[in-house]
Amino acid sequence: MNDAHTPDAAALARRVADAMYAKDRAAQALGMTIVDVGPGTAELAMTVREDMLNGHDICHGGILFTFADTAFAYACNAYNRTTVAQHCTVSFLHPVKLGAKLLASATERARTGRNGVYDIRVSDETGHIVAEFRGNSRTIEGKIVDE
Amino acid sequence: MNDAHTPDAAALARRVADAMYAKDRAAQALGMTIVDVGPGTAELAMTVREDMLNGHDICHGGILFTFADTAFAYACNAYNRTTVAQHCTVSFLHPVKLGAKLLASATERARTGRNGVYDIRVSDETGHIVAEFRGNSRTIEGKIVDE
Amino acid sequence: MNDAHTPDAAALARRVADAMYAKDRAAQALGMTIVDVGPGTAELAMTVREDMLNGHDICHGGILFTFADTAFAYACNAYNRTTVAQHCTVSFLHPVKLGAKLLASATERARTGRNGVYDIRVSDETGHIVAEFRGNSRTIEGKIVDE
Amino acid sequence: MNDAHTPDAAALARRVADAMYAKDRAAQALGMTIVDVGPGTAELAMTVREDMLNGHDICHGGILFTFADTAFAYACNAYNRTTVAQHCTVSFLHPVKLGAKLLASATERARTGRNGVYDIRVSDETGHIVAEFRGNSRTIEGKIVDE
Repeated sequence: MNDAHTPDAAALARRVADAMYAKDRAAQALGMTIVDVGPGTAELAMTVREDMLNGHDICHGGILFTFADTAFAYACNAYNRTTVAQHCTVSFLHPVKLGAKLLASATERARTGRNGVYDIRVSDETGHIVAEFRGNSRTIEGKIVDE
Repeated sequence: MNDAHTPDAAALARRVADAMYAKDRAAQALGMTIVDVGPGTAELAMTVREDMLNGHDICHGGILFTFADTAFAYACNAYNRTTVAQHCTVSFLHPVKLGAKLLASATERARTGRNGVYDIRVSDETGHIVAEFRGNSRTIEGKIVDE
Repeated sequence: MNDAHTPDAAALARRVADAMYAKDRAAQALGMTIVDVGPGTAELAMTVREDMLNGHDICHGGILFTFADTAFAYACNAYNRTTVAQHCTVSFLHPVKLGAKLLASATERARTGRNGVYDIRVSDETGHIVAEFRGNSRTIEGKIVDE
Repeated sequence: MNDAHTPDAAALARRVADAMYAKDRAAQALGMTIVDVGPGTAELAMTVREDMLNGHDICHGGILFTFADTAFAYACNAYNRTTVAQHCTVSFLHPVKLGAKLLASATERARTGRNGVYDIRVSDETGHIVAEFRGNSRTIEGKIVDE
């Protein structure tokens, strides 16, 4: 998919993610960290806290979505073209308990013109898949960092 | 849809929502409040805070999803049968700024056996629709409050 | 939603749907008929035939989708601005047997700029909801009929 | 994902797909052929015919969906446990012309308990991705062939 897996493209992806994260108060407030990022890919980590639980005493589906959606954002903006989420779907496959250490892995499925399709898997530290997210992105005007 | 729009059904929906909210640390942490709730319906309010913004300086899509998803949860659990989200989709229609006062309105679209389909609209104080969410629910074992 | 429920808007919606149907070989081949159409709305009918059944001996989900998608197309093109489907989701709620007489009802949920969100319900002659479809549209260049 | 990539599992997947296809009048009517099938995977071919075109003179999105959905069905039933589609999403990425030779490739993304997530890509003979489909399946009672 990514014809641009050069060292430069990887470095640009990293610069973009760092710049976005520095302003991403939601990701910071939820304690997300960037594990890895590349052209069209991103991997984030997050630990489930007390204030992420819902009325069924499991991690709120919205928080799982927010985690996946953040990985999606870093993956689809990695080319340094401002790109926004248009339409996302998520399947919740397994309840997530307090303290679970989660990983969100975003990969690029397709990119045609200004539209992109990204798949983000959320798994826990035992390797269980807890959610599968698919994001449809649209590239708009603007860049994230100076090139 | 709801053949049970009796005073009792409305009161039960309220008791369930109150019980869920009391344990829903994510909804509380994000400052959501319950405006109204009924059998298969729910309306919530939330104001966009600094810690809800993303790297593009607008409200994080995940936070909008979490808001809609919470209204979905209160609507689909209103019959006091424990019900979980299975698959959700969201379309982001308009960027949301810091300080926006949002409303999430959940209505029941279909309910057949243990499966339900709910539509949740997120709008701002000017009446702009900012997101449309659709949730597919599944009723499992258990109740939320004693009847 | 539709500030344009004038007789002219209704007549235009009908002209557009008739022009589209005349070229819509897929809709014709599947025996769909237009029951009603208006600005942002459409209602179609279709009877489930032998060649619409799948390997489980029920109506193929793809045929149900095609039916809903066609109602979606007529609804979102009713303003005579060429509009295409971008992202669609469908929930299959009830198996459909040979001979079932189906109705697809499309309504407009939201329209902002070039993006639209439409809900299409597929029900049978007993009033059973068999599928719920949501379509996200995008208006592109061009018109369907001369104005 | 598939811990069962034995010759027996592959042979069973083939028997199931052949049995389903023999009864799948919709797939036959649309001229689909099975290119390959395995545990959790399927690849189908289809050529776009005149009676698959819509009012915009391109392949009807519903027909593309039906094609992907059929690959999904053969992939998720390949273990010989009757499995149905619950919730599907599709993104249309590129218009498809009359005569295009399409390929639908289904792969398994996740399987937990009775729930499965499958990704189906539809591409044309030039390698263009024309649609990305995601299917959520649920395994119910019954088998497709005798074991």
